[in-house]
Amino acid sequence: MIVIGELINSTRREIKNAIEERNTALIQEIAKKQVEAGADYLDVNAGAFVDDEIDHLLWLIDVVQAVTDVPLAIDSADPEAIEAGLKAHKGASPMINSVTAEVEKFEAILPLIKQYNAKTIALCLNDDGMPSTADERLAIVKWFCDRFTKEGIPLSDVFLDPLVKPVSVNGSFGNEVLNTLDAINKQYPDIHTTCGLSNVSFGLPVRKLLNQAFFVMCISRGMDSVIIDPLDQGIMSLMYASEVLVDRDEKCAKYLKAVRDGVVSA
Amino acid sequence: MIVIGELINSTRREIKNAIEERNTALIQEIAKKQVEAGADYLDVNAGAFVDDEIDHLLWLIDVVQAVTDVPLAIDSADPEAIEAGLKAHKGASPMINSVTAEVEKFEAILPLIKQYNAKTIALCLNDDGMPSTADERLAIVKWFCDRFTKEGIPLSDVFLDPLVKPVSVNGSFGNEVLNTLDAINKQYPDIHTTCGLSNVSFGLPVRKLLNQAFFVMCISRGMDSVIIDPLDQGIMSLMYASEVLVDRDEKCAKYLKAVRDGVVSA
Repeated sequence: MIVIGELINSTRREIKNAIEERNTALIQEIAKKQVEAGADYLDVNAGAFVDDEIDHLLWLIDVVQAVTDVPLAIDSADPEAIEAGLKAHKGASPMINSVTAEVEKFEAILPLIKQYNAKTIALCLNDDGMPSTADERLAIVKWFCDRFTKEGIPLSDVFLDPLVKPVSVNGSFGNEVLNTLDAINKQYPDIHTTCGLSNVSFGLPVRKLLNQAFFVMCISRGMDSVIIDPLDQGIMSLMYASEVLVDRDEKCAKYLKAVRDGVVSA
Repeated sequence: MIVIGELINSTRREIKNAIEERNTALIQEIAKKQVEAGADYLDVNAGAFVDDEIDHLLWLIDVVQAVTDVPLAIDSADPEAIEAGLKAHKGASPMINSVTAEVEKFEAILPLIKQYNAKTIALCLNDDGMPSTADERLAIVKWFCDRFTKEGIPLSDVFLDPLVKPVSVNGSFGNEVLNTLDAINKQYPDIHTTCGLSNVSFGLPVRKLLNQAFFVMCISRGMDSVIIDPLDQGIMSLMYASEVLVDRDEKCAKYLKAVRDGVVSA
């Protein structure tokens, strides 16, 4: 499982304050803790700052890269911020979080993906809006794959996010995502799949429980990446267990190590 | 989800002692608590008593049925004990836990299923031994379905248990069960599926966690019954959440009630 640590995000009050106060120690501590807990990428987001997002994002990248070696996921809705972030990022293979299939935006970011050899989170959303069914998602997936392939971008650099919608709005929204993951993994074995889980539980109580159960279901449909809080022992425990159960942890080695390290609980 | 409460089982020390001591109060309390927590059936097992299983089983049935209305799952490896239990059981639709596809044993129990209109847990195991792959399981499933149908037993009275084997022995054993559940639900939409979860984690630490994650995966493949401890808030919470996620809880009503009742936690 490729874990993208989600904590350094300016929509979280603690992080927003730390960015404003240039609290290097706090940001670096959260960065290091996420890596120690198993993050393969660290998301960095300064999008809560409308007027000076780029300044804050560049500070975050600098501060985080001073203490960790894992690549960053440059998280912004603004192509200019993404470009500035990619340029500032040291080392190979930064990740872009995210691109959509909205044509104009996609074409603007495409040269950056190639220039920086970036990994890309490709969110199933296009100019027609947000898809509801698996078929609608798979049409967007096909568009992405055709477009990436035509540009010579290997699908193994792409992380498809099926776009999770709240089951409180429509009971079928969970199954549509699970069916999408099934189909993607059959049709495009080289591509990665990922998602932000928390949308699934929007509008319901005890959201953490719903997010955890949905995560387990997604793993059993072949999802091989996720954007989570790696310091959350509950979700990390379920991740280690799930990978054992679907035969993605040879000799249960990662699970047994996690148990020995004391980071697994039921 | 059809929950079969597993606690009144003589392989558990507390229950064995209570049976020996004819501790009616303890057995009845555990029976009532399981029903309050959502059990649709209560398993009763006196198999730990080799020489006088039937006496103890009949006492259990009598004591449990004095305080609850839910049907019992008569749990024994001995056809004579099952027959005695079915005869003693008051009210409609007792359950037999379990029959296998071992021909001689199956033919011995078949008349009892018909005579008592019993529900049946049909365990995927035949005279060739325990299956490993989904295909081996599905061959047994077909045998069961053909046999039940020929005898006029509705498949909606049958609970297929794919037979879970430990992932510590072979990493593929989890996926084989999940694929079996997928196929059963496609091929035989009327039949129920169930399982005892705990075998999956045999030989590994923190078994409860593995059992929980596997339960969630099984629900997402259409499993609609399970043999568990309904007093275990962790597993019951995941059950309520999972049913919401796979669109088996209209308007999230059962989930929201469970949250209001304080029986859900993350």
